Amino acid sequence: MLDEEDTYTIAWDAENECILYIDQTLLPGRYEQMRCATVDDLARAIRRLEIRGAPALGIAGAMGVALAAVRSTETDLGRFSGEVGRAGELLRGTRPTAVNLAWGIDRVLGKMALAASVAEAKKIAVAEAQIVAEEDELTCRRLGGFGEELFPERCTVLTHCNAGALACRCWGTALGTIRSAVEAGKDVRVIACETRPLNQGSRLTCWELLRDGIDVTLIPDSSAAYLMRKGMIDLVVVGADRITGDAVFNKIGTYMHAVAARHHGVPFYVAAPLSTFDLSHREADITVEERDRSELTSCGDRRLAPEGVGVLNYAFDATPLDLVDAIVTEIGVLRPPYTESFRLVGRDREVRP
Amino acid sequence: MLDEEDTYTIAWDAENECILYIDQTLLPGRYEQMRCATVDDLARAIRRLEIRGAPALGIAGAMGVALAAVRSTETDLGRFSGEVGRAGELLRGTRPTAVNLAWGIDRVLGKMALAASVAEAKKIAVAEAQIVAEEDELTCRRLGGFGEELFPERCTVLTHCNAGALACRCWGTALGTIRSAVEAGKDVRVIACETRPLNQGSRLTCWELLRDGIDVTLIPDSSAAYLMRKGMIDLVVVGADRITGDAVFNKIGTYMHAVAARHHGVPFYVAAPLSTFDLSHREADITVEERDRSELTSCGDRRLAPEGVGVLNYAFDATPLDLVDAIVTEIGVLRPPYTESFRLVGRDREVRP
Repeated sequence: MLDEEDTYTIAWDAENECILYIDQTLLPGRYEQMRCATVDDLARAIRRLEIRGAPALGIAGAMGVALAAVRSTETDLGRFSGEVGRAGELLRGTRPTAVNLAWGIDRVLGKMALAASVAEAKKIAVAEAQIVAEEDELTCRRLGGFGEELFPERCTVLTHCNAGALACRCWGTALGTIRSAVEAGKDVRVIACETRPLNQGSRLTCWELLRDGIDVTLIPDSSAAYLMRKGMIDLVVVGADRITGDAVFNKIGTYMHAVAARHHGVPFYVAAPLSTFDLSHREADITVEERDRSELTSCGDRRLAPEGVGVLNYAFDATPLDLVDAIVTEIGVLRPPYTESFRLVGRDREVRP
Repeated sequence: MLDEEDTYTIAWDAENECILYIDQTLLPGRYEQMRCATVDDLARAIRRLEIRGAPALGIAGAMGVALAAVRSTETDLGRFSGEVGRAGELLRGTRPTAVNLAWGIDRVLGKMALAASVAEAKKIAVAEAQIVAEEDELTCRRLGGFGEELFPERCTVLTHCNAGALACRCWGTALGTIRSAVEAGKDVRVIACETRPLNQGSRLTCWELLRDGIDVTLIPDSSAAYLMRKGMIDLVVVGADRITGDAVFNKIGTYMHAVAARHHGVPFYVAAPLSTFDLSHREADITVEERDRSELTSCGDRRLAPEGVGVLNYAFDATPLDLVDAIVTEIGVLRPPYTESFRLVGRDREVRP
């Protein structure tokens, strides 16, 4: 077990040239740091959701490219670049819906393209991956600061899945806005949806909020609308895995909360860094990952469904922007009409290094 | 293991004067008939949800009173009636929200009040309990026949929890309408919500539909709204645990589906026998049962949430009638305005024996 306060969800181990990460499949039972020394190991860790969460996947993509670079024995720059590029493609294919992963990969590959030698390319890769990680912390802090202004002085906020410290380097996006609100002295209670079928809400969100002393209550996903009906929810804040020009892709169940929130007049907010935006695509262009049937048919040693039953297990859903009251980013709170406010995003991304 | 085709969910064993029932907590792993010889055992079986489902609870209530009657050693009619009445109160308290339980208890107690001797009271109790069970089958068949008329020739229907053969003597209410539609030659596909936290959808609905050769696909509760958005759901049919003058109480998650159905213009139907109606009460009068935190914090051998987290685990929610497009009963399909159509229910209940 680690010192829980001082560890990042994902970090670069410069001495051993490998990736350190918290295995999120072991929580809440065990908080344990793992080591990942090859791209194949990293791809497996991402597929098994040992590493998950959009911003953390961005860091993983960046560090994965760095890992491929430092591990390469190629001396020819062309062949070296080819090898690292193939590693990037392997990683890109592990989670098709989350855009941050591809963003992290492309960001490091783009910087490496400027190198004049293999040695220089390796140095650039490692440095850029570490910058991506450090920036993520700053991004979450800034995003949190903008987001907390949306919170009343005393409120109950519903969240889904885990868009927290465990989904980022630290602090979190949706949970980052909550942490910032608590830090600002607001009286915030959190309702955490368990988030079937993999229970990131019960396992991760409850764990990290409890660790920070933030008031958190666990509910089944299906009771959120009823709590809104009873007047028990003041606002909803969720993360995002990809924001296209017309929709927010996030954990399955997000759309249901958005529909219920609108029905009850409860504000529905998305908290996501600019690396989550993919404004050149529309909802219809995006493949929604379908995950294995076993996630629904069993749980631990318990069989939950009869053999042979059909299963439909989408990992994500899409919420049209007209149900989203605001999107909180590190450059400020974007409000409808998004066709206007998204111009800021494009401009910011253009001027980025 | 039993012959799966020929067994009722709950039945009276006349030879041994006890109750036989399928233990629903063992499904889908084991299909096993249990024996219940005392009211205490029955109360425990109901609390543990070994016997569950609104109509089956009505039968259990009736048979529980019969069990108390035949087991009594009192010879004085007054003391006998007091003892049986206390048994009824014990059973009534096991599940506060489901009205059918109280309905079954009161129906047998009411008939017993006409008896002139202990021996006669015992005979009446057993006979009436068996009539309640036999009527339940007829009720489900008639209800199914009315309900299937709401199904297009070819359709996909979403259901929540288990309002099936396992929730009744046989056939089912919501699943009864589906069985009747299939029997009428319609091409029906079923989407079954897993129904957290106890997974009656995965464990029971999938099991019994698969056994009957009906096409069924399992989904997490939270993806129902997204499937509606994708145009994959043609109608929703659910059961009910209590219908008051203004709302339908049913398994937690039902309300969420009703909100989503209305948002997408998908018809939302409730299938329930008249024994589920409680028109003298309003939503605000009814206590919604809260169940144990462990249902959400663990599953089999797996710990799902950290120790010490708060939990809010309502067993039911309430759907206001303005979201319900029709209520299917054994006397026909009730449509809005319900203030009008509910008059038929009152009249029918008055003329009942």
